[in-house]
Amino acid sequence: MGDDSLLLRERVQTFLKSLQLEMCHSLELFEESARFCDTRWDRPQGGGGITKVLSAGKVFEKAGVNFSAVWGDLPTTMASKFEVEPQEFFATGISSIIHPINPHVPTVHLNYRYFELSQGDAWFGGGIDLTPYYLYIADVKQYHTVLKSTCDRYDPKYYSDFKQWCDRYFYLPHRKETRGVGGLFFDYQREDPERFFFFVKECGGLFFDAYLPIVRKRQTTDFSEEQRRWQLIRRGRYVEFNLLYDRGTKFGLETGGQIESILVSMPPFASWEYQHVPDAGSPEAELLANLKPKDWLGVQTNGG
Amino acid sequence: MGDDSLLLRERVQTFLKSLQLEMCHSLELFEESARFCDTRWDRPQGGGGITKVLSAGKVFEKAGVNFSAVWGDLPTTMASKFEVEPQEFFATGISSIIHPINPHVPTVHLNYRYFELSQGDAWFGGGIDLTPYYLYIADVKQYHTVLKSTCDRYDPKYYSDFKQWCDRYFYLPHRKETRGVGGLFFDYQREDPERFFFFVKECGGLFFDAYLPIVRKRQTTDFSEEQRRWQLIRRGRYVEFNLLYDRGTKFGLETGGQIESILVSMPPFASWEYQHVPDAGSPEAELLANLKPKDWLGVQTNGG
Repeated sequence: MGDDSLLLRERVQTFLKSLQLEMCHSLELFEESARFCDTRWDRPQGGGGITKVLSAGKVFEKAGVNFSAVWGDLPTTMASKFEVEPQEFFATGISSIIHPINPHVPTVHLNYRYFELSQGDAWFGGGIDLTPYYLYIADVKQYHTVLKSTCDRYDPKYYSDFKQWCDRYFYLPHRKETRGVGGLFFDYQREDPERFFFFVKECGGLFFDAYLPIVRKRQTTDFSEEQRRWQLIRRGRYVEFNLLYDRGTKFGLETGGQIESILVSMPPFASWEYQHVPDAGSPEAELLANLKPKDWLGVQTNGG
Repeated sequence: MGDDSLLLRERVQTFLKSLQLEMCHSLELFEESARFCDTRWDRPQGGGGITKVLSAGKVFEKAGVNFSAVWGDLPTTMASKFEVEPQEFFATGISSIIHPINPHVPTVHLNYRYFELSQGDAWFGGGIDLTPYYLYIADVKQYHTVLKSTCDRYDPKYYSDFKQWCDRYFYLPHRKETRGVGGLFFDYQREDPERFFFFVKECGGLFFDAYLPIVRKRQTTDFSEEQRRWQLIRRGRYVEFNLLYDRGTKFGLETGGQIESILVSMPPFASWEYQHVPDAGSPEAELLANLKPKDWLGVQTNGG
C-alpha cells in the first residue's frame, strides 16, 4: 500500500510527529548535555500525545514541543464553538514555544493543527510568530523574507493575509502592543485540505530556515544583568498574552486538557515591575516603538 | 457641620484614603530605607486615584496599595453588567497586594470598595485572603480567628458566609486548588450600607491585626534557594489566578483602567517549571494538600 492511499489525517499525523522529533533533535544540537524529556499521555476518550520538554540548557532555558492526536465524540464545548451537530472528530497538532536564555535571541512560537469532523468538514490552522527582546532589523527582515517566499510558492495572497491575521491575533489591547514582530497565522483553511497540507509541510520547515539561523547568529552575543532584567519584564508580557488572550490556552484549560502540556508555553521566569519605562533612545525603547503591525520587508537596514 | 451630616460616600472615601496611608506607614516601619512612591492619576470622565508602591525592600519585595474614587456617567459595560439603565455612578475603593521576600511570610491581598448609583442603589464589596508558601497552621488559625471575631461582632453568619464565598472565588479550577488559605469575600452588600460600613471599617483593621503579626513572626526565618524557588513557582499560580480568573483584573483591563495600577498586583518574579511535583511528605507537598476549602478553626495544632 503506497502513501497515496493513506488518509490525509494519517499523513498529517505522521508528518507532525516527525516534525516534533526533528525540531527536538535540531535543538539538542545546540546543547552540550541538556536533552528533551518525554511525557506520554492518554486521553481517556481517545488518543493522546507526547510532550517533550528541555529545561535549563546552555542555549535554551525552556523548550517545549507538544504533539497530540485525539479523537472520539466531539465535546459539546467544541460543537457549540463550531456550531455543528454532535458527531465524531479527529484532531492532530504540534505546538512549540522556545525560550532561549540569551536576551538577544528571540522567543519563537509555532503551532500547526488539523481538524476533521465525521460529517465531512476538515481544516488546517496554525502559524509561527517571533518575539524578540532586542530588535535586530536584519534578523526580522530575513525571518519575514523566508516566510514570504514559502507562502509565495502556494498563493501570492498567503503572506499578506496570514501576516495581517498574525498581527491581529498576537496583540495585547491593554498594552496597545503586538506580542512581537509577528509572522503567520491562519485558521479554518478548509477549501482544499489536501493541497493546503503541502503548504503546512513547508511551514514546518520555517522553524529550521527562519528561526534557527537567528539562534546561531545571536546565541553567543554578550548580555548584561540589565538586559536579562528586560527579558524577564518582556516575558511578563508573554504571560499576559497567553493567560488573558490566547484562545488555545483558554480553550485547553476550560475543556480539561493536559494542564502541564498547555502551560509548558509559560516562560521559566517572568517579572513585573511597576511602571517600568525604558530610557528614551535605548534599545529597549526601540523595541517597544516597533511592537506594532509593520511591513518588515519594506524597512531599510544597513545590515545587522 | 458634624461628621453625621456627611454623605456615606464621602465618609467611605475618607476612611479608605486614611486606611491607605496607615497601611503604607505600617509597612514602612518594617523597612530600613525602602519607601512607598506615589503615582496620582486622573480619570478624564471624573475622579482619579493614588497608587502607592514599595519595591525591593528588605522585607517586602513588592507592596502595592491603590486608592481610587471615580464618578460620572455609568460606563455601558458596567450598566450591562449590573443590568441597569444609563445613570451616574460613584465608586471608591482600596486594593492591596503585599509580596514579601521571605517564603515563610505569606502574600496577602485585600480589597474594599463602595459603589453607588444615582438611582439609589448602593453596596459594599471586598475581602481579604492569604496565600502562604509554607503552611504554619498556628498562623492560619490565628488569622482566621481574628477574621471570625471581627465578623461575629456584626452578624453570626458573616464569617461562615464570607469565608465560603472566598473559598469559591479564589479557586483555580484548572489546578483544582484554592489560591491560598482563604479569608473573607463579599459583594453586593446592599441591604443597609450605613450599618455595613461599620463592618467594613473593622475589616480595614484586619490588615494590622490578622496579617502583620504573621510578618513580624516569620520575617527573620531563614530560607534556602530551594524555598525561594518554590515561592516563585507558587507565585506563578498567583499570576494564573489574576490573569485567568480575577474579575477585577479582567474588568479593569477591558474597560481601559489604569494598567499599571491594576497590574501592580502581579508578583515581582514568577516561575513556571514543567511538571514540578514536590516530594511526598515535604513541607511543599503539605501546602498543596491543604489548598482546599477547610475549617481552619477546627484544625488541631500543637502551636507554631
